Amino acid sequence: MRISELCDVSGVALPSIKYYLREGLLPPGDRTAANQADYGTQHVERLRLIRALIDVGGLSIATAQRVIEAIDTPDMPLTYLFGVAQYAISDTAVFADVAPDSPGLARVDALIADRGWAVTDENPGRQGAARVLDTMEGLGHGHIADELPRYADAAEQIAAADLATLAHHADPADMAENVVVGTVLGDTLVASLRRIAQEHLSNEVYPVRSTT
Amino acid sequence: MRISELCDVSGVALPSIKYYLREGLLPPGDRTAANQADYGTQHVERLRLIRALIDVGGLSIATAQRVIEAIDTPDMPLTYLFGVAQYAISDTAVFADVAPDSPGLARVDALIADRGWAVTDENPGRQGAARVLDTMEGLGHGHIADELPRYADAAEQIAAADLATLAHHADPADMAENVVVGTVLGDTLVASLRRIAQEHLSNEVYPVRSTT
Repeated sequence: MRISELCDVSGVALPSIKYYLREGLLPPGDRTAANQADYGTQHVERLRLIRALIDVGGLSIATAQRVIEAIDTPDMPLTYLFGVAQYAISDTAVFADVAPDSPGLARVDALIADRGWAVTDENPGRQGAARVLDTMEGLGHGHIADELPRYADAAEQIAAADLATLAHHADPADMAENVVVGTVLGDTLVASLRRIAQEHLSNEVYPVRSTT
Repeated sequence: MRISELCDVSGVALPSIKYYLREGLLPPGDRTAANQADYGTQHVERLRLIRALIDVGGLSIATAQRVIEAIDTPDMPLTYLFGVAQYAISDTAVFADVAPDSPGLARVDALIADRGWAVTDENPGRQGAARVLDTMEGLGHGHIADELPRYADAAEQIAAADLATLAHHADPADMAENVVVGTVLGDTLVASLRRIAQEHLSNEVYPVRSTT
């Protein structure tokens, strides 16, 4: 199909498509004339992936590009892909390094040791969790640390569910895409279900009494 | 203390403090002269709260202000406060309404009914979860829906931990602040622990074999 058709089919505006082609997020079509190229369903699918990562996953174009390159790298171990996706969604100040002597970081590392989790020092979650614990402590709500084992149980279940979704794929390329998209969008899924469960439970534990 | 001291003690820059005073996020000090006021520890604590909500929670100044007003409202039911905090962290396109006939929304509502969760239609998590499910389906990874019960179990545990942290407070004002700050920062805590558990588990299930 021509680029104008690709627009219609994908619902992505022409300037955006041209931009993604220029930046290399979208592979070029087959050249059919001096200034004409032919695009296929793989371009429609790629555009869907790009929009999912940017619009729903909140990635910048540069980060989406890095992530797509990783998906396109043949035989990249899935564990590395998880890492690439994790870094992509941790590219914010909240996951930046805390002070090395942060009490929160010591607590997070104690939790990791406690659970027998094998993780590298570079895992961005260490910094994010430490920052939340330090901030809560500074505000007088440091007892959130008492609930860490419960949050950690939940995190393990989430990670197990993340991995279980991969078993549905036989093709390594599909699996690779699933790792990345699932990791990028999974934060929102979990945050969403948390809002729902929180409303239900808070209303059970602290019901608003009717005054009538 | 004077405003310059408040700067030093809190570590917040003077222009920011003046801005928060102007916008009403920070209550005025006790006026001691025509252009001089006295600030106390409650101002230091309030500045710490503002910075936590904005820097770590990622709230805009306007949203932080709404949230602080809710904390300051005496006798506001905790369940309402959870709702205010939830809206504050859901003020993004990802939590905007999906189409009413979204298949993802039908799945989320079926999950809610299945779990016996009592939630209002306005809960922003319904839209966020539906958007993730629809996007995954569009990319050929719709089987994430099969794992919804597991994600929902985890969400329930998270909500239970969120509520358990409140039991440490006797003072209603402290509790109110804890509800809001815990809800706002909790997404990051959970996302962080997810990254850690994911690295551990993915390496267990898909180990990277050494070639040496």
